[in-house]
Amino acid sequence: MKTGLKIVTIGGGSSYSPELIEGFIKRSETLPVRELWLVDIEAGKEKLDIITDLAKRMVRRVNANIEIHSTLNRREALKNADFVTTQFRVGQLDARKKDEIIPAKYGILGQETNGPGGMFKALRTIPVLIDIIHDCQELCPDAWIISFTNPAGLNAEAVLRYTGWKKFIGLCNSPTVIVHRIGRLMNLDPKQLRVDFAGLNHMVFGLHTYYQGQDISKQVIDALAAYNDGKTYEERFDTLPYTPAFLHELNCIPSPYLRYYFYKDIMLQHAIKEAENGCCRAQVVKRIEQELFANYADPALDVKPKELEQRGGAYYSDAACSLIDSIYNDRGDIQVVNTLNNGGCASFAADEVVEISSVITKEGPRPITVGRLPDQVEGLCRHIKSFEKLTAKAAIEGNRETALFALTMNPLVQDEALAKALLEELMEAHREYLPQFYK
Amino acid sequence: MKTGLKIVTIGGGSSYSPELIEGFIKRSETLPVRELWLVDIEAGKEKLDIITDLAKRMVRRVNANIEIHSTLNRREALKNADFVTTQFRVGQLDARKKDEIIPAKYGILGQETNGPGGMFKALRTIPVLIDIIHDCQELCPDAWIISFTNPAGLNAEAVLRYTGWKKFIGLCNSPTVIVHRIGRLMNLDPKQLRVDFAGLNHMVFGLHTYYQGQDISKQVIDALAAYNDGKTYEERFDTLPYTPAFLHELNCIPSPYLRYYFYKDIMLQHAIKEAENGCCRAQVVKRIEQELFANYADPALDVKPKELEQRGGAYYSDAACSLIDSIYNDRGDIQVVNTLNNGGCASFAADEVVEISSVITKEGPRPITVGRLPDQVEGLCRHIKSFEKLTAKAAIEGNRETALFALTMNPLVQDEALAKALLEELMEAHREYLPQFYK
Amino acid sequence: MKTGLKIVTIGGGSSYSPELIEGFIKRSETLPVRELWLVDIEAGKEKLDIITDLAKRMVRRVNANIEIHSTLNRREALKNADFVTTQFRVGQLDARKKDEIIPAKYGILGQETNGPGGMFKALRTIPVLIDIIHDCQELCPDAWIISFTNPAGLNAEAVLRYTGWKKFIGLCNSPTVIVHRIGRLMNLDPKQLRVDFAGLNHMVFGLHTYYQGQDISKQVIDALAAYNDGKTYEERFDTLPYTPAFLHELNCIPSPYLRYYFYKDIMLQHAIKEAENGCCRAQVVKRIEQELFANYADPALDVKPKELEQRGGAYYSDAACSLIDSIYNDRGDIQVVNTLNNGGCASFAADEVVEISSVITKEGPRPITVGRLPDQVEGLCRHIKSFEKLTAKAAIEGNRETALFALTMNPLVQDEALAKALLEELMEAHREYLPQFYK
Amino acid sequence: MKTGLKIVTIGGGSSYSPELIEGFIKRSETLPVRELWLVDIEAGKEKLDIITDLAKRMVRRVNANIEIHSTLNRREALKNADFVTTQFRVGQLDARKKDEIIPAKYGILGQETNGPGGMFKALRTIPVLIDIIHDCQELCPDAWIISFTNPAGLNAEAVLRYTGWKKFIGLCNSPTVIVHRIGRLMNLDPKQLRVDFAGLNHMVFGLHTYYQGQDISKQVIDALAAYNDGKTYEERFDTLPYTPAFLHELNCIPSPYLRYYFYKDIMLQHAIKEAENGCCRAQVVKRIEQELFANYADPALDVKPKELEQRGGAYYSDAACSLIDSIYNDRGDIQVVNTLNNGGCASFAADEVVEISSVITKEGPRPITVGRLPDQVEGLCRHIKSFEKLTAKAAIEGNRETALFALTMNPLVQDEALAKALLEELMEAHREYLPQFYK
Repeated sequence: MKTGLKIVTIGGGSSYSPELIEGFIKRSETLPVRELWLVDIEAGKEKLDIITDLAKRMVRRVNANIEIHSTLNRREALKNADFVTTQFRVGQLDARKKDEIIPAKYGILGQETNGPGGMFKALRTIPVLIDIIHDCQELCPDAWIISFTNPAGLNAEAVLRYTGWKKFIGLCNSPTVIVHRIGRLMNLDPKQLRVDFAGLNHMVFGLHTYYQGQDISKQVIDALAAYNDGKTYEERFDTLPYTPAFLHELNCIPSPYLRYYFYKDIMLQHAIKEAENGCCRAQVVKRIEQELFANYADPALDVKPKELEQRGGAYYSDAACSLIDSIYNDRGDIQVVNTLNNGGCASFAADEVVEISSVITKEGPRPITVGRLPDQVEGLCRHIKSFEKLTAKAAIEGNRETALFALTMNPLVQDEALAKALLEELMEAHREYLPQFYK
Repeated sequence: MKTGLKIVTIGGGSSYSPELIEGFIKRSETLPVRELWLVDIEAGKEKLDIITDLAKRMVRRVNANIEIHSTLNRREALKNADFVTTQFRVGQLDARKKDEIIPAKYGILGQETNGPGGMFKALRTIPVLIDIIHDCQELCPDAWIISFTNPAGLNAEAVLRYTGWKKFIGLCNSPTVIVHRIGRLMNLDPKQLRVDFAGLNHMVFGLHTYYQGQDISKQVIDALAAYNDGKTYEERFDTLPYTPAFLHELNCIPSPYLRYYFYKDIMLQHAIKEAENGCCRAQVVKRIEQELFANYADPALDVKPKELEQRGGAYYSDAACSLIDSIYNDRGDIQVVNTLNNGGCASFAADEVVEISSVITKEGPRPITVGRLPDQVEGLCRHIKSFEKLTAKAAIEGNRETALFALTMNPLVQDEALAKALLEELMEAHREYLPQFYK
Repeated sequence: MKTGLKIVTIGGGSSYSPELIEGFIKRSETLPVRELWLVDIEAGKEKLDIITDLAKRMVRRVNANIEIHSTLNRREALKNADFVTTQFRVGQLDARKKDEIIPAKYGILGQETNGPGGMFKALRTIPVLIDIIHDCQELCPDAWIISFTNPAGLNAEAVLRYTGWKKFIGLCNSPTVIVHRIGRLMNLDPKQLRVDFAGLNHMVFGLHTYYQGQDISKQVIDALAAYNDGKTYEERFDTLPYTPAFLHELNCIPSPYLRYYFYKDIMLQHAIKEAENGCCRAQVVKRIEQELFANYADPALDVKPKELEQRGGAYYSDAACSLIDSIYNDRGDIQVVNTLNNGGCASFAADEVVEISSVITKEGPRPITVGRLPDQVEGLCRHIKSFEKLTAKAAIEGNRETALFALTMNPLVQDEALAKALLEELMEAHREYLPQFYK
Repeated sequence: MKTGLKIVTIGGGSSYSPELIEGFIKRSETLPVRELWLVDIEAGKEKLDIITDLAKRMVRRVNANIEIHSTLNRREALKNADFVTTQFRVGQLDARKKDEIIPAKYGILGQETNGPGGMFKALRTIPVLIDIIHDCQELCPDAWIISFTNPAGLNAEAVLRYTGWKKFIGLCNSPTVIVHRIGRLMNLDPKQLRVDFAGLNHMVFGLHTYYQGQDISKQVIDALAAYNDGKTYEERFDTLPYTPAFLHELNCIPSPYLRYYFYKDIMLQHAIKEAENGCCRAQVVKRIEQELFANYADPALDVKPKELEQRGGAYYSDAACSLIDSIYNDRGDIQVVNTLNNGGCASFAADEVVEISSVITKEGPRPITVGRLPDQVEGLCRHIKSFEKLTAKAAIEGNRETALFALTMNPLVQDEALAKALLEELMEAHREYLPQFYK
């Protein structure tokens, strides 16, 4: 008889894993994880081993009843899994670096989610996801897949549109980050804030904010605007980096990623400078990761190190644990996930994937109804959704012309000749990870 | 400083009230009701007094910190109320009796919710609700109104379409009753069943049933069909009174009220016989109520008497307490309420009131997304929704021609001449409660 | 090289055919019909021969360059056809008689289109239509099929939902009849009236009426109401048989068939009396047809006889000629047809068949946008549409349980036990024409 | 008694007017124009006089029964008008020059319709349109307003959303130009081509092309791609300036204006070079106009000069005459206009203005149903529609912050700081024409 849950984490060697492990340990009273399988590929073996050892120390420290397994054999791990989380990064940070630096050469923002960089991340990731799903169909057909591999929304669009697999949820920490920023700003407990989110991954909007049942949306905008007033872009960065005038007209809470589409020039200058100085995000993250892994390898360490939060993935793995917990325990709480819209937000078709406040039960996520996005952002979101759908199609079909069109139509590109040159260089750079285009 | 909730119950003299009081007592740890105001009209004073005394004994028995107030002055009660529940019955059971007996004379089902009877109940009720809302706008503008006065959906349609008041929820016990019947049938704890409900009040459908995250919809239909197999209509009545073939084709869980539209002839024969024998539902309920109030008046009684459940309103007041509790405590659980659709069910417009599974937070109910109703019932539900909208319009405007049209188009009537005769007799019978038509 | 059109008329022995032939003759300047193939089955051979001879005399009289062919071999006829019209009646008038008389025994209206009678007509007709389409796919894949076999909307729903054939149009004369009645009533040339029609076959509504660009909708309703004022149902029959109050509340122009759903009792009394007296519509038509065919057989007759208009199909065949003419000549005029909604009327889904004002070009019909039906009729139309969809499903699948459900949910039935008895008797009565149910 | 039509042309001194006059003369058999009132403002008096004299000579030459009136008094002209056309240009070509040159300084395309230039054209134009409508409400409440003042779609959005005036049609020649290009390319008579257009003004798409009822969409794309194959952007310009790969992926016929969003860089380089060389479009047009007016002033000229077609407005005024003719004569032909969507194109809400194939009758335009735009362009169109709606709002309310947001969100801008600088310079440059922002 089954006595606990089997969790499989694909990309187990990720620097995020300690938060995930901590998350399961924290919840051990209510979430009976018995086996955690960390899976990675040959190239990630060294990191996987470090993480595995750390995980074992963390478990041992609190005497938790969780077996830690480590394997390069994904299929062995998936057998009878209850939940599968994915946090792998095809081509690792070197690939991300290319996603950022190559577009910058063309005067274009790479933008890991919705821009050219995100597009190539999707083209590399989707074929692997499809393979994982084929394995799951055979080995663990009742498992839920919680995917926080970016671009979380685009990947979910591809999986839910082109495979028959329904138990797939795309997850991102940015709504949680936004709520925490609002809480800090308003000096309110984020647990007592409820924000109605809708939109797309990295293009999500807090349409209304409630505190103890009161609609405090206007106060939040006002506070955010007042806080940012008179500050430069850099000074605003710790909240949400928008001017008071912009926030007032927007009239809802933006994702921090909106800056790529409304502050494009300043973002581009940053990106170009970072590329020149060898400090693009991938490079920064790489250095942080090196330090983190040095840290993780310390045999004395048996807790999640504080430094991990600096990594930018704060709340990420915790969000995954929380989602698993709500599904397993049928909590019926509201979390923000990437799932089929089905009428939740009137700006999208029923069969399109959106990032939306959803009630999470044992049956999975169900969007709650939030109405239509305001004109201020509906158009941009629809633009990105079209881009996502064409990218998903190109990724599945391995059709280079469709990929070129998707890149051309991206609001950060908008020029076919430029797109073509950029596409070719990115394709070539990522060739080993794009088998569907090089058949 | 405020230290507890003020609840106002309009129609406080109702036989349902002891369940409501019991509900508040049961929840006293988490729901700090400090004042319960029972409001009624002069004609209901005797019952109100009996209920008030019983309520005081019930509270005293458990030493609960709830003040019981009793008044005929609604405005005094409403001042600074936190929650207002309505369970009044304009014209009391005598009016209901007319709603049932008069149509039967014409060979037509009265049908308290969606039929001619329900229509006249709405015509009598809506003007009173509008008055209450005017009072609330002045005296307790932040209060939630939880209305379980029938027809719950039609009344909500009128309030939400024709007044600016948003914090209004129509409530019915029938989804809860259905879940309990399924639980009993399947030998499963109803608390562990989740049923996706959508449709209209008394025309609501359980589209999917989940038990511990598994979709057991088919098993439920099969079990229901097997249980009903070979039984007569009367023998089937304790579950849901439909034949196996019907249930299999319907392929979702019907409301018991569906029988008026799919078993019309047998229902009509019953109704006519009941009318002749003086045992129409109103008369039965009247007798039960007389016994109940005799019981309530017993100074030794200080709990909710068992007999109340027989009354047909089991779970009714408890549903109201549960809803108040979830709003006050921001529980975020899923309850079935009558509220604006807003995309929840694709068969209805965003601005139409539906009865639908909704997540209940401090902000009120929010429908979850359930997709489209099946063809088997979408058409009938849309038919009834049109009837509801025209009836609401007639009730607000006091337009007799619109009322005639609404009655004619009702699927239980469908004949203008008949509708006209019936309308005139019902109008005259209820004249004192229909001031908007006799200006 | 092709020098003219080949038209195939399935059910060529129909009494309507002379109007069709006259229609082609009238249009010979612009519509170059070179071959008209009249197709029928063995049982209809006698009538077919009479029609064929009459057709030849009509053609000869005006020296038209149209070859008349007559055959029992449908496949021979269909080869390379340009247009196929269907006006066959499976089981002929004897079957219709059963559709009318059997329901009347149960106290139910047969109602040839939307009621039980119409349902059985659909169950008999749809398999034959599917066969014809299979033949057309092979023999004349570019042909348009213009079907005026009733129930025109339900048949079109079945064909367009369950086959891949797109060039299929359901056609009914009732919108034309309505426009002529309005014209007569208002003393205006019907050709100068434009009425926006939307709804379903035999449940179609004139939402707005324009005369020379002026919206005269209100005047039309007023005139109709004034004309009908003080008249009995029978006296109103030559216009549209509704009372002034009804018309004012309806606020759009109803189809005459609406009476079955808003004047049900009077219609039922008529039907029962007609059944008893042997003068149900099928019997009346049968007598008219006998006279007509006696007439048609007269070797001296070489024009369409006046008596045909009495038959109730006035404008029917002319509508078909007109539709063919507009397609062939790319006229782009507006005609009312049964076709996919595609956004034309907001009350229906894009993939549902509606009867709607459409612009007719060489590409076929395209609905024009008319917005939403009023609440007065939207619900009923949606109810009937659900009935149509289930009936089409039952007809295609030969599923008796689905047929029973469809019959039960019909607003003229609403009782399962009654529906079951009625279904069984009708099934048995039409058994030879329902092979899909007796496999 | 009225014996002919009174037409008022606001902006009568436009160089387009001779085509309009020719259009009326050509149609004199069917379109009984009796009075043509050319209205302009003081600043345009010289041109108005030249046009008036030419118009009189043109009319005299063919002995047409059309009175030519010329006035600076708009209200005098509007009295009892049947049709009002607008072709005025607030601030004339000098303003357009600023719309083009100022953005170019910021590295941004001005883009007269959907870009910053178009936005300022709308901000200048909409207040004047509102004034005209106020006059029409008083002086000619039954008149149709045919507006070909750019941006035609955005202006229509403002009028139809913010005024009660319904008889307003925005008109653009680009669909006609596209059809002519296809005709030339395919060597087919454009009159025999039918293209289903949908989208927005200057962002319209030919979804399907039919020739004699055959869907030749694929052949058109193939022919266009083959023609453009191997050509440079400049060489492709006489057809539609897109590459074969782009056209194949787009899979519908694009507007030439799409190049601003898919060929942005090349367009921007052109714009910057033109600005530097003093040959931006406004300057080119200005020179053409000077030559045209020199020409028009020639007392010997009494026909529309050939040179006018070079102006870029070919088919423009003819489209207006054709629209007037179809309304007046109730032709029911299909023309492409800017009007309320009402279900015509599934990518837009019912109450949004779209540019769409519509059947034109005496009642005005009615969209035909074309379904959903493909993903390739739906997102961009929705993006621009949001921009249009915010711009219309800013224009009506005179709200500078909303204007800033609209400019920032435009896909050609996407940067708030840049938008702010650009907005300020454009506001200042156009100050005299933006009274609503300088109250």
